[in-house]
Amino acid sequence: MFKEYDVIVVGGGHAGCEAAAAAANLGSSVLLITMNMETIAQMSCNPAMGGVAKGQIVREIDAMGGYSGIIADKTTIQFRMLNKSKGPAMWSPRTQNDRKRFAEEWRLALERTPNIDFWQEMVSSLLIKNNTVIGVKTNLGVEIKGKSVVLTNGTFLNGVIHIGEKRMGGGRTGEKSATGLTEQLVELGFESGRMKTGTPPRIDGRSLNYSVMEEQWGDEERGRFSYTNVELPQEQRCCWITYTNEKVHETLKEGFEKSPMFTGRIKGLGPRYCPSIEDKINRFAERERHQIFVEPEGWNTCEIYVNGFSTSLPEDVQYKALTQIPGFENAKMFRPGYAIEYDFFPPTQLNLTLETKLISNLFFAGQINGTTGYEEAASQGFIAGINAHQKINEQHELILKRSESYIGVLIDDLVTKGTEEPYRMFTSRAEHRLLLRQDNADIRLSPIAHQLGLINDERMEIVNRKIKNADDIFSFTKKQGVDMNEVNPLLDELGSSPLTQNVKLFNLLSRPQVSINDIRKANSSFNEFLNNFDKETIEQAEIKIKYDSYFEKENEIVAKMQKMEDKTINPDFDYNLLTSLSKEAREKLLRIKPRTLGQASRISGVSPSDISVLMIHMAK
Amino acid sequence: MFKEYDVIVVGGGHAGCEAAAAAANLGSSVLLITMNMETIAQMSCNPAMGGVAKGQIVREIDAMGGYSGIIADKTTIQFRMLNKSKGPAMWSPRTQNDRKRFAEEWRLALERTPNIDFWQEMVSSLLIKNNTVIGVKTNLGVEIKGKSVVLTNGTFLNGVIHIGEKRMGGGRTGEKSATGLTEQLVELGFESGRMKTGTPPRIDGRSLNYSVMEEQWGDEERGRFSYTNVELPQEQRCCWITYTNEKVHETLKEGFEKSPMFTGRIKGLGPRYCPSIEDKINRFAERERHQIFVEPEGWNTCEIYVNGFSTSLPEDVQYKALTQIPGFENAKMFRPGYAIEYDFFPPTQLNLTLETKLISNLFFAGQINGTTGYEEAASQGFIAGINAHQKINEQHELILKRSESYIGVLIDDLVTKGTEEPYRMFTSRAEHRLLLRQDNADIRLSPIAHQLGLINDERMEIVNRKIKNADDIFSFTKKQGVDMNEVNPLLDELGSSPLTQNVKLFNLLSRPQVSINDIRKANSSFNEFLNNFDKETIEQAEIKIKYDSYFEKENEIVAKMQKMEDKTINPDFDYNLLTSLSKEAREKLLRIKPRTLGQASRISGVSPSDISVLMIHMAK
Repeated sequence: MFKEYDVIVVGGGHAGCEAAAAAANLGSSVLLITMNMETIAQMSCNPAMGGVAKGQIVREIDAMGGYSGIIADKTTIQFRMLNKSKGPAMWSPRTQNDRKRFAEEWRLALERTPNIDFWQEMVSSLLIKNNTVIGVKTNLGVEIKGKSVVLTNGTFLNGVIHIGEKRMGGGRTGEKSATGLTEQLVELGFESGRMKTGTPPRIDGRSLNYSVMEEQWGDEERGRFSYTNVELPQEQRCCWITYTNEKVHETLKEGFEKSPMFTGRIKGLGPRYCPSIEDKINRFAERERHQIFVEPEGWNTCEIYVNGFSTSLPEDVQYKALTQIPGFENAKMFRPGYAIEYDFFPPTQLNLTLETKLISNLFFAGQINGTTGYEEAASQGFIAGINAHQKINEQHELILKRSESYIGVLIDDLVTKGTEEPYRMFTSRAEHRLLLRQDNADIRLSPIAHQLGLINDERMEIVNRKIKNADDIFSFTKKQGVDMNEVNPLLDELGSSPLTQNVKLFNLLSRPQVSINDIRKANSSFNEFLNNFDKETIEQAEIKIKYDSYFEKENEIVAKMQKMEDKTINPDFDYNLLTSLSKEAREKLLRIKPRTLGQASRISGVSPSDISVLMIHMAK
Repeated sequence: MFKEYDVIVVGGGHAGCEAAAAAANLGSSVLLITMNMETIAQMSCNPAMGGVAKGQIVREIDAMGGYSGIIADKTTIQFRMLNKSKGPAMWSPRTQNDRKRFAEEWRLALERTPNIDFWQEMVSSLLIKNNTVIGVKTNLGVEIKGKSVVLTNGTFLNGVIHIGEKRMGGGRTGEKSATGLTEQLVELGFESGRMKTGTPPRIDGRSLNYSVMEEQWGDEERGRFSYTNVELPQEQRCCWITYTNEKVHETLKEGFEKSPMFTGRIKGLGPRYCPSIEDKINRFAERERHQIFVEPEGWNTCEIYVNGFSTSLPEDVQYKALTQIPGFENAKMFRPGYAIEYDFFPPTQLNLTLETKLISNLFFAGQINGTTGYEEAASQGFIAGINAHQKINEQHELILKRSESYIGVLIDDLVTKGTEEPYRMFTSRAEHRLLLRQDNADIRLSPIAHQLGLINDERMEIVNRKIKNADDIFSFTKKQGVDMNEVNPLLDELGSSPLTQNVKLFNLLSRPQVSINDIRKANSSFNEFLNNFDKETIEQAEIKIKYDSYFEKENEIVAKMQKMEDKTINPDFDYNLLTSLSKEAREKLLRIKPRTLGQASRISGVSPSDISVLMIHMAK
């Protein structure tokens, strides 16, 4: 009934979709198995993509030929570049999306990708032979052979939904949970754990009073995730901001005694940086109010997502508290918020390729690895899909470096340090974040994707042209001088001190108050030169000019660190032989099986002196 | 948390959606409760609306201000008027629809209807006081007060899905079943039963070879369901026809020993006129082949619905048989076909308003009443929604007559005769079908809807104009003579015998071979007169001219029968007092509680002599 597939992807969320697309685009025959084909790529929580650090991840996926950026762009109802007032490393694209259209576009994109077949059913176990996965078995008892399998089960594995004191099985509200897989994996030797996440109530937008809320519009000059020419929807929709208050907090506290979290009914840890409203009140008792983002769920629907109000308190408490928020006095709920507990597998059980250490050709991606967030999931799926393909074709692994991508940071963190609570990406997690910007994801990663065959020559050529052109502008400013008399009036206008001698354009542009756009107006030869380039290239050059010295310094640090990263270790090395290692270090090293000295140094419990021992041994 | 609603509708399928819209449009405050707001108005089976007798029902719903026709028109990927070569009573509009867009448009239409609130949850019981429903209780334990409740649970009540020897709980594949309600209703004294329905596998359209199938395009001149000016999608998509063969049948027979139907695992009866493929092979063993309609599921998706191949045989048997159908040699399945068993309540427990006899203000609509089909469900929901509103406002009941609508036939059949197997509408069920045409649903029913307040004056005016204009054309043809010399050449061309004397236009147009369009070409004064009217009105007049004598005769029959329908009976009359009634008649009359002598005469087991007894008694 089924042929043997190269890659079987279990789960049709962000991780599963990217995994299927990546493997198929590399030439693998792929089967995507999902419990419900109608809910492929459903945004289970907020109707938005990107944001701080997450926006960078979407750009990285796009730069390598993934689909998340394209789908998000196509279905954008509002775009904002967050942190535009800060340095470019902080700029973070974020979109509000039409929930239904997002899912529809993903499904259509997968349908249009050759090599992807679909099967709607629950996978209940894996077929294993000689510690290698060779396929899956479904609830119907169908055995489907696959050379590799990517598990992306999200919150479905033994999912339990909590609202106040009520609990019910389910992978999402209204949907069944998935059973069988955890039990088999544990039997195979995997360690599993429980995590928890939550979602806010959904509200009838017709019942809100927007006049007392702050409007939040998208950027006038629309940005985008994708480096490709996706056609963007024209109009944008407004969001709104309102705030909780003491009264809201008092009401919520009335429900604490029935909270599944505070009463210990939920064992799994929730996402620290995406806390429920009751968590926020509890942990930040001094805060008089919390921000609430009122986000439409689509172009036409009246459904509203109450960002910042995730909760699993009893539904009547949720309701009462909501109606005490300004603008929500007459709010009508479509459904209450809820918490969901689900199985995950501590990600230290994975290689940096996202293949499990215990079972060959078996890959994990997304929430099953203890992460939270669509972007984190999508990027893992993308890498797992690539590595599944590479592995079965005996091609090189794809392991992105911490110094070249957030995705590299994400996976290295997971695999090296593990996580006790749902892991979310932040800029602060990336030590080289100055280099990992949304503006240069293509420069950083497209060459890698091109080499893999995930982006074509034409696309690569565009990236190369961007690099060359930005360099040309950079060089031009280094060579071209400015007449102090010509620009001093402008500098005065901009509040920048006047020049006392003629300088190069570069020196002038290094000043924070002075932009390329200001100078091109005052300098016709510069303006004429810039006319040869598009906006994005000029922006790239400007960032390069303004932050050149910082980038140089950062690159030096990377180069230094890289020596550690280049020192590869045999993952199967028997650390018991090195008796001078601390006991803890030996245990951890044996468990994590680091690939490089750099990775070893990041393992918690492995001290600098342990690293010295390793270095001495490796020098022999 | 919730106000007291006028009408609570449980279920968001075709019945629930129409019920909510109708009650809200009449001014009731409505709460629509559904287990999953993402699946409102999901087409669970075929992606199509209308067809023989069903198309007429959609037109009837539309003529009365329901939404099904509008939504179907907006999402049409192909329109065909079936039976166009037969008499106008047989003409039946049918659309293929984009499954996702159909659901999306329904949801948006409901959101845009004032007075409808939504709540996502499972209803687990009804709140009852003094044999009157006063609200519902949900799975979370929330009690919601409502003056009336409409149950439209579809296949969800204790739903069990069968594929071969496998069985699993579920209301649809991938969705949970609903529990609790049946048990409570039975405890309240309701009789419940089990029914079965099924659906075919879904196929990857990219894997089919269309070149060996027959193309089936939509009508070049696009028709529509709605009498309103819905903007229709421009392009149409092609469908295809192929056939099973002996080999396919042999393969399917191999699975019979594992068939849940043939081995008795399924107790409920399935829809006789929408049988599974194994049923067709079994019952029509002499047939060498069965037709298969290959229907796209939407504008862009590659998913294909295999109309005519509904099955619950083991998935590997389904697959093997499919690949033996011409064009399906390399077919890939998205999911297997399956059968589903669910609870229904024999509809003789209802009044003609669809209110239950046992519990006041409680209405049932759709599959819960033992029907099958989107159109049957939608029309019941529509009537139940109206009557729920009318009841709680002490307004007159809406009971459509058998002589004025298919909807009247449907509900009278259900309530008077009950049904042992899923009830589907046919033209043959309507004794006055000559009058119940798709072209005159507005003339028949819009006045009733206008009186209720479901359609506005403007819309009523359009109907009145259509009636008047058609009458004008009719009268014109009765008055206006034709010169035999002028038309004889044309008649010769049309293969109609020449006139031997001048006649009226009417006489000429009564000839089956002669159409208004033919004559207007040859008769300039007629043509000039017709220029004042639109296509639809001219068509209406032409039908009136051609079938006038038949309609007159049929109307006479209706008038005669109407006398029986006008003889109302007190539904609480104690038939035990009439000892000359047969025992069976007494039992049945006590159970059905007919409203009229006409309805009494249609009860099976009530003989003409029983009716005579009743008439004699009533004459006293």
